[in-house]
Amino acid sequence: MIPALRNIPKSYSKAAASLLQPIYGRQTGGPQLPMCGPNLQSSFAISQGTDKCKTCTQTCTSGIRTITTNQTDEKPALAQVESIEKSQMEHFNLDTESLKKLNPSVSETITVHPISAVDIDGTKIKLTLTNGETLRYPTVWLRDNCQCSNCFNPLALGRSFLMQNLLSAPEADDARLSDAGDVEIRWKDGHESVFKAEWLQRRAFTEQARQKYRSRFSLPKKQWSHGHKVAEFDYPSLMEDDAALLRWLVVLETWGATLLKQTPSQPSAAYDLCERVAKVKYTHYGIYSSVVNHPQANNLAYTNQTLNLHNDMPQYQEIPGLIFLHMVKQHRGEGGDTIISDGLRAAEYMREHYPQQFETLVTTDVYFWDKGEGKDQMEMNQFYKINKGPTIQLNNSGEVSTIRFNNQVRDSHLDLPDDKVEDFYHALQIYFRLMYDNSVSFKMQDGDMTVLDNVRCQHARQSFEGDLTARHLVTTFMSWDEALCRRRRLQEQFKL
Amino acid sequence: MIPALRNIPKSYSKAAASLLQPIYGRQTGGPQLPMCGPNLQSSFAISQGTDKCKTCTQTCTSGIRTITTNQTDEKPALAQVESIEKSQMEHFNLDTESLKKLNPSVSETITVHPISAVDIDGTKIKLTLTNGETLRYPTVWLRDNCQCSNCFNPLALGRSFLMQNLLSAPEADDARLSDAGDVEIRWKDGHESVFKAEWLQRRAFTEQARQKYRSRFSLPKKQWSHGHKVAEFDYPSLMEDDAALLRWLVVLETWGATLLKQTPSQPSAAYDLCERVAKVKYTHYGIYSSVVNHPQANNLAYTNQTLNLHNDMPQYQEIPGLIFLHMVKQHRGEGGDTIISDGLRAAEYMREHYPQQFETLVTTDVYFWDKGEGKDQMEMNQFYKINKGPTIQLNNSGEVSTIRFNNQVRDSHLDLPDDKVEDFYHALQIYFRLMYDNSVSFKMQDGDMTVLDNVRCQHARQSFEGDLTARHLVTTFMSWDEALCRRRRLQEQFKL
Repeated sequence: MIPALRNIPKSYSKAAASLLQPIYGRQTGGPQLPMCGPNLQSSFAISQGTDKCKTCTQTCTSGIRTITTNQTDEKPALAQVESIEKSQMEHFNLDTESLKKLNPSVSETITVHPISAVDIDGTKIKLTLTNGETLRYPTVWLRDNCQCSNCFNPLALGRSFLMQNLLSAPEADDARLSDAGDVEIRWKDGHESVFKAEWLQRRAFTEQARQKYRSRFSLPKKQWSHGHKVAEFDYPSLMEDDAALLRWLVVLETWGATLLKQTPSQPSAAYDLCERVAKVKYTHYGIYSSVVNHPQANNLAYTNQTLNLHNDMPQYQEIPGLIFLHMVKQHRGEGGDTIISDGLRAAEYMREHYPQQFETLVTTDVYFWDKGEGKDQMEMNQFYKINKGPTIQLNNSGEVSTIRFNNQVRDSHLDLPDDKVEDFYHALQIYFRLMYDNSVSFKMQDGDMTVLDNVRCQHARQSFEGDLTARHLVTTFMSWDEALCRRRRLQEQFKL
Repeated sequence: MIPALRNIPKSYSKAAASLLQPIYGRQTGGPQLPMCGPNLQSSFAISQGTDKCKTCTQTCTSGIRTITTNQTDEKPALAQVESIEKSQMEHFNLDTESLKKLNPSVSETITVHPISAVDIDGTKIKLTLTNGETLRYPTVWLRDNCQCSNCFNPLALGRSFLMQNLLSAPEADDARLSDAGDVEIRWKDGHESVFKAEWLQRRAFTEQARQKYRSRFSLPKKQWSHGHKVAEFDYPSLMEDDAALLRWLVVLETWGATLLKQTPSQPSAAYDLCERVAKVKYTHYGIYSSVVNHPQANNLAYTNQTLNLHNDMPQYQEIPGLIFLHMVKQHRGEGGDTIISDGLRAAEYMREHYPQQFETLVTTDVYFWDKGEGKDQMEMNQFYKINKGPTIQLNNSGEVSTIRFNNQVRDSHLDLPDDKVEDFYHALQIYFRLMYDNSVSFKMQDGDMTVLDNVRCQHARQSFEGDLTARHLVTTFMSWDEALCRRRRLQEQFKL
């Protein structure tokens, strides 16, 4: 039950496993594991009395000794590496086949079989297809979705038939196959409906047809772990080439993480990309926000301290779906590395191996808050956000839909009885550790832009040294509503 | 189990109840109820062969006879009228007491009792207050929330203590009451924390303290039904007077519906109010959208047809929290009345009386879609939104958090096996009927603006006659994130 730890020399692994028990296995009394060091990929800390911390630059009041490790060939248990090969990425052309190869779900193509028979079967209309398949459509759904110009507005593409006129089980007097192969229905009240064979088969109530449309809504996600190669794209080509833009949006939606190169140095570059896709998302930090050291910082991002893995802005009910981290200017000294993690992978691992603690994170609402005064013209003068939501949020299908993990803005108010608090922290710490086990790190260069699915992936920053303006990162947000909208439109543009 | 129907003369009520059974009681074979007429408050329809519909102006293909009713003194079962008296609203001044009277939860004031004793009690610190109360704080929470300047950034108001340094059960060597009445803790690793008595009591793990903070996050909602008087405010005073702005935001959050008078006629008036509060919410229809008849309408709102009760924009994952309906110019003829309903009231009624159908609406995801081309400069060129979510969404506390009901943009794709479809429609029709039973209607005048909690309340429009530009309504949206943020800041401004 104790997962293998990454980057720990073999000689340490047994001791490390025993040290981890207080967190993973919840045994009390033994030695405890304070995880120190801004980047757990290259260092691993154990409690060791009062030594001074060697890795993190902030004062470490608890006194921690860090063991820096070398690369090891020990295969980590978590690392099911599913990477997009860079060479593969570079040679993609946007013909139908290459994009299908990248993500087979992106295409809307279906095979339509002619209808061979139409029958009334109680409160359903039964279709028999030429391939032998039988499809059943409830009459209440058919009447509700009549496509005639009185019931459906072909310009607005919206239903004009009113629910007040919908009988609970409309009766069909007659249902038959037309010469053109369509389904014609005459209702008891005299109204007539005609449905095309393709239209009906796209909306079949079979698992297969429903799955097809689910991927129109949202592409299936592929999980990644330690060792994942983050897919790279060139910023200029995204700004000029619709095919490249679609490829990038598909990869971003599928994998949750991309790295853009050659981003121009103006602070509005990410904003410009958002507006090219659709629309930027405003937050109280403005339409984009320069993350530089502020002497009177209203956010911990504006310091040179370590930031642990986190999702941005969970203090918003409408937590931004995508985050753009644009490195306008990287500082020249040590530190400041970017660490990213696929929180979906960590959550699914946790669901499997720590079901009870997973359930705790799914059912426990956490408050996040952010209160401050605007520091520059773009920011709101005064803000005071509070939001609550679970660390791991599931949708009605049981899929992970939103992850909220942010130690900086997690509220000190905790809406739990005192005897539930320790279990909650225990679960949170396991998830924290799994995120790090799962992570990859790199140092962004000038002109790099990391773009993440912010309700899925976490990012972190090593502490760094340097003068207050040594490093200039710009943060911008976009909503998935707009990104998905553009992806679907581009799919149509390229007839996918 | 069959709720009483509003506005039906006594002599009709028995017949009406029997007619309703196919929807409410799910008996098949009997006569069915097609609900016709744009405003069910003043009319009630029964299926009656092929008569022409007398109330709704659109062609009614099913042929419906409308029975127009007079006012009745029959008390409806649904109408637990909880109204804000208009006279009361008019005389509110924003002193602490009047706002508390309006909503007692708005105030952050608490009674702080001095601490008389501090003890270590296993993995908790126990406080005894002078009023005899005992409060317990887990050490893991205390260490995580140390307020010293190393662990908590007093400028950013964020936690700088890292989770990687948090032991799973930090041990306190000593915990004691300081001369100043604070709690001082010395941890085993030598770190020291000081907590103020008030700070701790605000964060007590008692139900009372947690309830207090819940209402800081979101004010308790008061439900309303038929007969409710919608609270009125003057637009000019909201734009000038912070006290009036706070009063309006509190009423809007609590009741979900307000009516503003004396709104100036420029189409940007609602946008201007949003920007006065905080920020408008962009949608693909722009920052505000003129709902006038379009010959090539890309949305059914841009026609003169009846729109049934609906929430706006459920095709967005981030469905806008607030909707502003600004009547720049009302047409001068018949029809066009506004109907609004407290969907929360209908949902709670449904939870109590139709638990099985309520569960169906909670657990069944519905797709909403919106595809089109921009019609004016402010709109996005091309849009293609799809979202899925339940009709009634509950949060982790079991409270109704979001309602999505919109027949116009409800997708024809339905992600259910065919044998579940009829049950879903049945549940949807019950909810539809309850919303109407619950509704109030009024005809907006030039300069009126209806502002609604759009994830709670529904609105509808009667069909109307007149030339294509006879009626000019402007729709604008705002997010609850920004509205709640401003409410909290104004509370502080007025020391509430």
